[in-house]
Amino acid sequence: MEIYLDNSATTRIDPEVLALMKTVMDEDYGNAASLHRKGVEAEKYVRRAKQEIAETLKCSPSNIYFTSGGTESNNWAIRAAAEAYRRSGMHLITSSIEHPSVKNTMRYLEDQGYDVTWLPADSDGIISAESVKAALRDDTVLVSVMQVNNEIGAVEPIAEIGEMLRREKPEVLFHVDAIQSYGKYRIAPKRMNIDFLSVSGHKLHGPKGIGFLYVSDRVKLRPLIFGGGQQKGMRSGTENVPGEAGLGLAAEKMYRNLDVNAEKLYSLKTRLCRGLQQIEGAKINGKFDRSSAPHIISCSFSGVRSEVLLHALEDRGIYVSSGSACASSHPSEISTLLSIGLSKE
Amino acid sequence: MEIYLDNSATTRIDPEVLALMKTVMDEDYGNAASLHRKGVEAEKYVRRAKQEIAETLKCSPSNIYFTSGGTESNNWAIRAAAEAYRRSGMHLITSSIEHPSVKNTMRYLEDQGYDVTWLPADSDGIISAESVKAALRDDTVLVSVMQVNNEIGAVEPIAEIGEMLRREKPEVLFHVDAIQSYGKYRIAPKRMNIDFLSVSGHKLHGPKGIGFLYVSDRVKLRPLIFGGGQQKGMRSGTENVPGEAGLGLAAEKMYRNLDVNAEKLYSLKTRLCRGLQQIEGAKINGKFDRSSAPHIISCSFSGVRSEVLLHALEDRGIYVSSGSACASSHPSEISTLLSIGLSKE
Repeated sequence: MEIYLDNSATTRIDPEVLALMKTVMDEDYGNAASLHRKGVEAEKYVRRAKQEIAETLKCSPSNIYFTSGGTESNNWAIRAAAEAYRRSGMHLITSSIEHPSVKNTMRYLEDQGYDVTWLPADSDGIISAESVKAALRDDTVLVSVMQVNNEIGAVEPIAEIGEMLRREKPEVLFHVDAIQSYGKYRIAPKRMNIDFLSVSGHKLHGPKGIGFLYVSDRVKLRPLIFGGGQQKGMRSGTENVPGEAGLGLAAEKMYRNLDVNAEKLYSLKTRLCRGLQQIEGAKINGKFDRSSAPHIISCSFSGVRSEVLLHALEDRGIYVSSGSACASSHPSEISTLLSIGLSKE
Repeated sequence: MEIYLDNSATTRIDPEVLALMKTVMDEDYGNAASLHRKGVEAEKYVRRAKQEIAETLKCSPSNIYFTSGGTESNNWAIRAAAEAYRRSGMHLITSSIEHPSVKNTMRYLEDQGYDVTWLPADSDGIISAESVKAALRDDTVLVSVMQVNNEIGAVEPIAEIGEMLRREKPEVLFHVDAIQSYGKYRIAPKRMNIDFLSVSGHKLHGPKGIGFLYVSDRVKLRPLIFGGGQQKGMRSGTENVPGEAGLGLAAEKMYRNLDVNAEKLYSLKTRLCRGLQQIEGAKINGKFDRSSAPHIISCSFSGVRSEVLLHALEDRGIYVSSGSACASSHPSEISTLLSIGLSKE
């Protein structure tokens, strides 16, 4: 029997999503920009997927842009904001526990002359709205904070940060990396004062190679990728119709079953954490009550190397992660665990 | 009965490719960067796909980088070359009949202060090596010319341009948009002195949302998309394993059947062109002998609006294109047809 516990790295595709993608690839394979019926049919899937996603965020389909995944969404949002608002200022605020796709985009912008404030997290991995407020300057143009940390499941006070920005400095744009939270939490970007929201398909039992970026109406958006003018000229390239249709359905299903899924996940999480706590030398990192994300558990085991444990569990058919898959090729990357004060041991 | 004649916009997926993708999505769904068996299995598909592609180009798998498609490949190659070699010069050479993903990236660079020479094509849509040579300057860093024009099927003298560059100015980088030619022509980037080659999956009965960029060993490559360090840090983002596996198989099949397919396509092309020539007011644009691409026919009909013809044919189950799908939302885009001297009529 296989027990796959690495769903924050990637999920198995939902069978209904797969069936839909198969139909699109095999039968309705037109280019969504073609003017004949095959194109019009393809375009209907695109429109429907945007509609399904818009409903989960209580926004208009016109706020949704498809991308190749969460990494592109994070890159695009941050660079578009930095470059389009350069005249208003070159100061950006983010945290030390962001995903590498945020961190490394910020580092690129630092090389381009931007000034980035890296906010530390507390020992539970939380970035407070107060610390964001204290970092605001006259030349701040963007704040970028993730909603759920991919390593320890800390839930950041996104609504509170958005509210604080609206009150203190409404012109500052707010980007939320929701790659680990979308499908697990209800998000209302308009109410929460969010300008950019990044989402990845394969974290929610949808396809790999597809994601989206929510962009609020007030943003002067710029493309990261130029070309044939698809998606209002903002993200060119032939539409990945099967991927987009699959993502739309996966999103719709996640929100249809949100409460039931959350209950089930929290109950599994509590049971697993209780078991882990009985192991000598095991310590659960960050919070693991209902203030933490339902689907992520981080646990340290003293006296055993993580890869040894990973492979021992694998031999029993249990798949876990010894760190973010997105940093596995760069072990030198400072992880969330070190950021919140844990030792290398 | 349906007759789909819009394969330059997009193709129907090959059934074997679809079956492979289904297996990857349903069973081998791991994150290729995960260290456990599910990750290792996923990574095998990635490696195999790179190997399959490398064999078609007689290069090393290390020269292949997966992207979200041809548009991203074109954007990346041109921007990476322009930005990494900025100190050597800011002059770029391209043609007036390139795809919008090349043209609009060049225009973006013009806005950033680069100087772009736009070479005209002759009345058959050909860019001569001589005209490229005449445009070379001391500060030229990149030449970008497509191999097969997407609208009229003109085949550009890529090998000759590469040879001329090696002889005249070996330090200049050479980018080839091979999106309409890969899978139809044998391409040996090393022998042809090509530094970047862009390919899209969905033009060769592979999946949408995936493509690759060949990069020669001598290029100082820079990422367009930053993140978790996948693909040697040059193209971050969770690997689209099903897409990559599908593209690898589609590529392998195209090259396995290259000669047979070409014969079949040329015979169909000749037959269709003969029929078209019997229609009053019909004129085939560009060449249509064996010096043209086997899979593209462009024909003008005087006295009838293209959309009217498109829909009349559609009613008979025949799907054609009235222009590049990649420009359908931007009818103001100057097409190849106008570039080679045809009138709007």
